[in-house]
Parts: sequence; structure tokens; C-alpha cells
Amino acid sequence: MNTHMTPEEFRRYGHQAIDWIADYQARVESFPVLSKVSPGEVRAQLPAEAPQLGEGFEGVMADLERVILPGITHWQHPSFFAFFPANASGPAILGDLLASGLGVQGMLWATSPAATELETLVLDWLAQLLDLPTRFRSEGPGGGVIQSTASDAALVALLAALHRVSGAATETAGVSTGRYTVYTSSQTHSSVEKACRIAGLGSGALRKISTDPWTQSADPQHLAELLAADVDAGYTPVLVVASVGATGTGALDPVAELADLAHRHNAWLHVDAAWAGVAAVCDELRFVNDGLEKVDSYATNPHKWLLTNFDCNAFWVADRTALIGALSILPEYLRNTATESGSVIDYRDWQVPLGRRFRALKLWAVLRWYGAVGLAAHIRQHVGLASEFGGWVQADPRFEILAPYPLALVTFRLRAGDQATRALLDAVNDTGQAYLTHTLVNGQLAIRMAIGSVLTERRHVEATWTLISSLGG
Amino acid sequence: MNTHMTPEEFRRYGHQAIDWIADYQARVESFPVLSKVSPGEVRAQLPAEAPQLGEGFEGVMADLERVILPGITHWQHPSFFAFFPANASGPAILGDLLASGLGVQGMLWATSPAATELETLVLDWLAQLLDLPTRFRSEGPGGGVIQSTASDAALVALLAALHRVSGAATETAGVSTGRYTVYTSSQTHSSVEKACRIAGLGSGALRKISTDPWTQSADPQHLAELLAADVDAGYTPVLVVASVGATGTGALDPVAELADLAHRHNAWLHVDAAWAGVAAVCDELRFVNDGLEKVDSYATNPHKWLLTNFDCNAFWVADRTALIGALSILPEYLRNTATESGSVIDYRDWQVPLGRRFRALKLWAVLRWYGAVGLAAHIRQHVGLASEFGGWVQADPRFEILAPYPLALVTFRLRAGDQATRALLDAVNDTGQAYLTHTLVNGQLAIRMAIGSVLTERRHVEATWTLISSLGG
Repeated sequence: MNTHMTPEEFRRYGHQAIDWIADYQARVESFPVLSKVSPGEVRAQLPAEAPQLGEGFEGVMADLERVILPGITHWQHPSFFAFFPANASGPAILGDLLASGLGVQGMLWATSPAATELETLVLDWLAQLLDLPTRFRSEGPGGGVIQSTASDAALVALLAALHRVSGAATETAGVSTGRYTVYTSSQTHSSVEKACRIAGLGSGALRKISTDPWTQSADPQHLAELLAADVDAGYTPVLVVASVGATGTGALDPVAELADLAHRHNAWLHVDAAWAGVAAVCDELRFVNDGLEKVDSYATNPHKWLLTNFDCNAFWVADRTALIGALSILPEYLRNTATESGSVIDYRDWQVPLGRRFRALKLWAVLRWYGAVGLAAHIRQHVGLASEFGGWVQADPRFEILAPYPLALVTFRLRAGDQATRALLDAVNDTGQAYLTHTLVNGQLAIRMAIGSVLTERRHVEATWTLISSLGG
Repeated sequence: MNTHMTPEEFRRYGHQAIDWIADYQARVESFPVLSKVSPGEVRAQLPAEAPQLGEGFEGVMADLERVILPGITHWQHPSFFAFFPANASGPAILGDLLASGLGVQGMLWATSPAATELETLVLDWLAQLLDLPTRFRSEGPGGGVIQSTASDAALVALLAALHRVSGAATETAGVSTGRYTVYTSSQTHSSVEKACRIAGLGSGALRKISTDPWTQSADPQHLAELLAADVDAGYTPVLVVASVGATGTGALDPVAELADLAHRHNAWLHVDAAWAGVAAVCDELRFVNDGLEKVDSYATNPHKWLLTNFDCNAFWVADRTALIGALSILPEYLRNTATESGSVIDYRDWQVPLGRRFRALKLWAVLRWYGAVGLAAHIRQHVGLASEFGGWVQADPRFEILAPYPLALVTFRLRAGDQATRALLDAVNDTGQAYLTHTLVNGQLAIRMAIGSVLTERRHVEATWTLISSLGG
């Protein structure tokens, strides 16, 4: 039987795990990007039951190599261009490791003051690095918090909006069928529809704002019409979600115009900039911040494109009152002097779960390792590569570009049509040399080239274009 | 300016981080358990702005020691007896580290088949180790999934229940004020009230089942009355949440009786066994499973008392149809062959967020390192220590025990009253030698002694009793 791992065993196995990761980073390019296993293949190689007696850590390390690796789709591969990136940089991994080692649970300020105070600080740091409006900083009525994902951020924004628009009535009385309405463009991430369902509004409460066929940006005129019609019909608009860098093609909504319309009807304006928001670390890309001085809440994911491993969504509110009002419950066993003094933040009141990991450590490690200059260089490199890649696509008459690409996502297709485009995508992915995914643009199948992995260099983008071009018929 | 950390830099700093954690484990006992910093003290020691230029990892390591550690309340301290434990064992920390290093995002089977298949496997392993009903295993209509916390589990259970009771109507139409009702005891964790608020039912939908003044268990007779009255009044009961090891005193609800009542009214029965459920790794503690063959969903937290660092909640459903029905949305950019074949699990449809970390790795590492025998020894040790501790309290006429303690939580007070009990608790915590928290039992202030840290030995429990006894007036 195994007893607890001693500090000396931890040191020995820990060095092995670190070495394995360092080696993985050095050889990740040698793997097929997209796993080739069939359903059930991984599980079939592992015992059906847990062991009776404990074993050394060697077995985990061996099976990691033998069984797990073939079943991995390598998100850290330099030629991973699918979905959006999920950066896991060295300093982030180590910051997260230190958080695991400390093993604190920061639900209250009192349960580890440093976990709360560092989180408040790094969210202020990040707000400053991104040049966000000062009202998101913690010294005023607003403030930032780390959520798990942009989905969680959209959900808590909706809950805060319901709290505010109802004067807190929803906390006790709940919502009513057919009363509240939510607005977002057809390009916005599915998390907004999911949030409507979770919050009890149902997907029927969601109004889809039409978009421009080229930019895919939400049309403010259509939002105005939707709002007017709903108000006339007796609905209460509660939330408008604007996207900055929407999932399909990276569309940028006209945030200021949408915010003005939302506020005219006392609705909340939340911006989902999950992928694109962090681009504001570059001066020249601060157009992603246009209109933010008017919004109620804002979310972007350092765990996508800002070098911080999953999970780490940065969420800010201009006024934390409604958020805390929506999410705070104080049972006896959590009461404590610091909370009652009112002089501290208890982040459990800013999120759905009660428990929380010390995630600020990894973000702190990233911001210090890279500094403002290093972060900007990381983003700038990918934007430059996407610009080059887009140029190659545009120069080839077989292909067409389907949307603007001011950041690092290029959406394109074969002029030969959906079937040819699908065949090309499958052929590229089957080589294992790159992995790209698809979307629909104006009903047409499109390939998405999302550049943003930590290890991606020009040669990977170039080789991927050569591959696409050679397989493109 | 810093560029990316190279594999060799990662190896070097990684070894330092591992060594720091190993040393922390060896010296954690030397720190005051409860941090003594004042509000703002941690932040004041750090720069107000992020650095312009990147720096080496040495700065993070130095500030971790100088600034962060004094602000830490040491959840891994052997004399941490507050709230519930948050075990961070060596194998868990390393499993989690490997997950960070791989950096995969397992939202779909296709985005890393091994992440999904290992999760399904280890949840089956854990169901077998806990001797849960076979209908929770993945080979039938049920199955397990890792949620972030028990709060998330309670929320998705409520969403699945709403989906089932409404015949999926809530997905589009939402909920209606004053239609659905939820039932749980006054001892149940606040997450159930929070779930009611999040899901749009409002806290007004929640009925509190009265409890036995000694066992603090929910009274089935009272639940029957509540259900009958609500049905008569036109409400639709949707969910009953039974607690196994409730937060205040560790109360065990009569699960089978509550389930029978719930099902008589077509309501869902969810069991929240966040802390206590994992005790079923010991044959002699399998009373915590009583009645589970009748329930619809079940949640317990390996991140509390089963050696797996935060976050890791194990959540099972007897039938996954309603859960997936409540949470599935398939936008175009996530469509893929494996999903459409129907032969794989996409865990994004089992949870609120879309993205997900490869958390199965750490649970796998824990189950393999300890084996069934090692896990049982871990739990058994704490239960034995709590039994001893309870005996000491009972033998001292100044104190009284306020609830049964069949597991590892002892709830007690000074007979001298609330004020004396509060003073004693503060005095104990002020020494820095132990940390305990409080609750209310039948309106009286009580001290909770929750034994369960990885490093806790008999001497720590004994020393804490000596401390309590000497400060107890």
C-alpha cells in the first residue's frame, strides 16, 4: 500500500514531470496535430478497474507516453490553427504549479488574503496593459475577477443585468416567461444562448441581431428595431452582448452604438472579447477597445491568446453592485470579521461556484515574465503572420477571403464550393501536419486559419499555406 | 524584452518550483495556519503597475516567499481544521502539472480523445471504488463527469431536472415565476439557494425541510407535507437535494425516503455529498451510500477529502439524457465527424462552460498512486482521529457535543454559551497553531473541528485539543 508521497519523492517525480514537459515542448512539432485514434481506443488500453494497491508514479509517466499521447490533439503544436489558440506558456505552467502546491482555496479574503489581493492587483495590471477604461479598476465602484471561461462571464453578466433591471426582485421571485429579452448577433458565441437557457429565460428570449455580410458586425439599426418592437410588445430588454472578435470570423461589433441603444432601454451591455480583447496589449490594435468606456462589463481570456494556461477568463464590471447582489449569499459558516468589516473583496460573491483556485499566480507570472513589451511582441507576431497568410490566399485565384482579418484569424474558401472546401480541409487535417477548423459564412462553408500558438513561427504558417495550396485542386 | 521561456529555461525554473513546493510541504507546519495580514497589506508590497520589460522567474519566486506566503492561510497545514479540507497531494499536483504542460482543451472528444476517454474511465473507476450503484457507470444510460465544484453540480442537476419535468419546454420558454419548487434541508449548502437564483427560479422557490435537532437530518415527514401543500397550490416540484455530510455538522439525510417522496411527484433527487461521499472508499463507511440506488444524480469532491487538488468535483447521473438536453448547443464551428457519429462523449454538453481542462489526469494519478487500499487508509485515519477527539470533548464537562460525528467532523461548544465559545475560537485561531471555523446549531454558536488534511497526524489533533482545553476557561 502507498502512503502519502513524501517531499523527497515529490521532488524526484516532480523533476521527472518537469523534464517530460520540457521535452514535450521541444518535440511537440513531431506529432500529428490532430489525434488519429478511433473512439474507445484510448480507454481500451487501460485497466477497467482502479488498482487495489498503489504504485509508483512511473506507471503514470509510462502510460502518459504510451496511451495518452497518441490520443492527444496537440493544442500546443506550432501548426495548431483550429478554433482559437489555448496558450500554455512556461511561466503560466509554473505559476499554476505553485498554486497547486500552495493548495489554498480563495473563496473569501480571509481564507488566503494573498490570493484575493494578488487577483485584484493583476486584474488592475491587465486593465492598464490593455488600456481599458479606468472605471474597470478596483479603486472605484468597478473591478476585475478571474472567471473560469467566457461562458461563465456571459452568464454572470446576465445575472447581474437581471438583478439590476428588476431592482433585485429576480433574486427572490425569479424570472417570468416571456418578460425579459436578450440581444446579440448571429455571430456571437453559443455561450450567450446557453446563458439564456441556464438563467431560466429560455432560448426564446434571445434576439439575433443581423450582421453585415462582409464584416459580420452586428447592425445597430436592426438592434434598434428589435428593441423598439420588444418594448412595444411589453418585454423588458435586459442584456445586449456585443462581440469583439466573434468566434466564426472574428467580427468586431460597433460597441459604442450597441451600448447607447442598450442604455436607452436600461439594458446591460456586456462585451465578449474572449479571443481578441488581449490584442489591446499592442498600441496599434487598440481598436478592439472602441466603445468600452460605455459598457457595463467586459471579458477577455488570457487562456486563449495571452500565454496563460486554461482556465483564466478576465472579467470586469464598471459597477460591482449588481454582480455581487446577484451572486452573494452569506451562510453562517462563512461569516468572518474581515467580510463584515466591508474592507475586503470576497470573490465567491463574484462567481457561480463557492470554491476557487489561486489562478492569479499564473497570470502574475506571465505578466512579469513577458512584461508589456513581450506580450505585445507575442500578439504582434501572429497578427503579422495572419496578414501575410491572408495575402497569399488573396493572391491565389482558386480561393476567396470571406471576412476582414485585422487580427490573426483568416476565413477563406475554395471558389469551387462547399464540397471542395470540405474535402480540402479534411485532406489538410489528415496529413497531421496542421489542424484547421471550419465555420459557415453567409451559409457557405469556410476554413478558419487562427494563428496564435506559442511556438508558431513564420515557417509553420508558410508550410501550412503550401500544404493548403498543393491540396487545393 | 523577454521572449518565450525555452524548454531549457522551463526545465531549470521548473526544478526550482518543484523544489520550492517540496520544501513548502516539509515546512508548512512552521507557519501560522491563519494568515495574520491586514486588508491591503499584501497588495501594498507589490508594484502598482505591470512591468514594461519582462524579468526572469526569480522575481516571482522571491516575492512568493517574501510577499505571498505571509498572506497565505495554509490549507495544507496539518492543523488546518477549518471549513472542510482541500487535499493537495503530491500525485495530484503532478498530474495537474502534466495537464498544464499538455495544454489541451477537452471540450469535444475530437479536441483530445484521451482527455475525454480518461475522464470517463476514472469516473467509472471512482464509482467502483466508492461502490456506487452500477447505473452511474458509463456503459449504461448514466455516466460521470468532472465539474468544477459541488455548486456547479447542484446547478446542472437543477437544469437537468427542469428539462425533464418540463419535457424540454424550459429550454426555449424558460421558467415561470411561482411555478417550480425546490426542496432541501436548512443544513444544506448555500449552493442550492444560489442555483435557484441562477436558474431563474429565485430563492422564493426554495422550501427548507426541517431537521432533527440532534442528527440535523432532513425530516421526510416534513418534506411530504411541503410537497403535498405545493402540489395542492399548483406548483410543480422539480428538485429535492439531499445532503450526505452537510456543511454545518456533517448531517446525513435519509436519502431513500427523500428519493421516494421526490419521485412520487416526478421531481429529481440530487445528492450533494461534496465532503463525505468519498468516505465510501472504506467498507465500514459505506452508510454514506444508503439510498443512492434511488437517486437521479450524485456529487462528491475528490478536491476536498480525496487527495486531488482543486478543482475536481465528481458528478454522476443515472440517465444522461436530461443533462445533455439541458446543456447541449451545437454551433457550426464545433461540428465534427466524431460528434455526429454519436459514438463519443462531448463533455461540453455536460457542463456550463464550453472549455475544459484535462482534470482527469490528476484524479488518475491519485487513484493509481494510492490504490483502493491507500485511499481507504487516508480516510480511515481521519475518522479514527475524529472519534478520539470527540471522546476527549465529551469527557470534559465544560464542553458539549452538538451533533453525531460518524465521520471526521466534530461540532461542539462551551456550555458557558455563545460568547465564551466565540472567545475560545478566536483565541485558538489567534495562536496560529490551529485554525477552526464555526457554525450555528439550533441557533447556538458551535465550533467545527474538520479533520482531513494530508499531513495531519495524531499529534496535531492532540495538540489542538490541548490548546482548546487550556484556552477553554
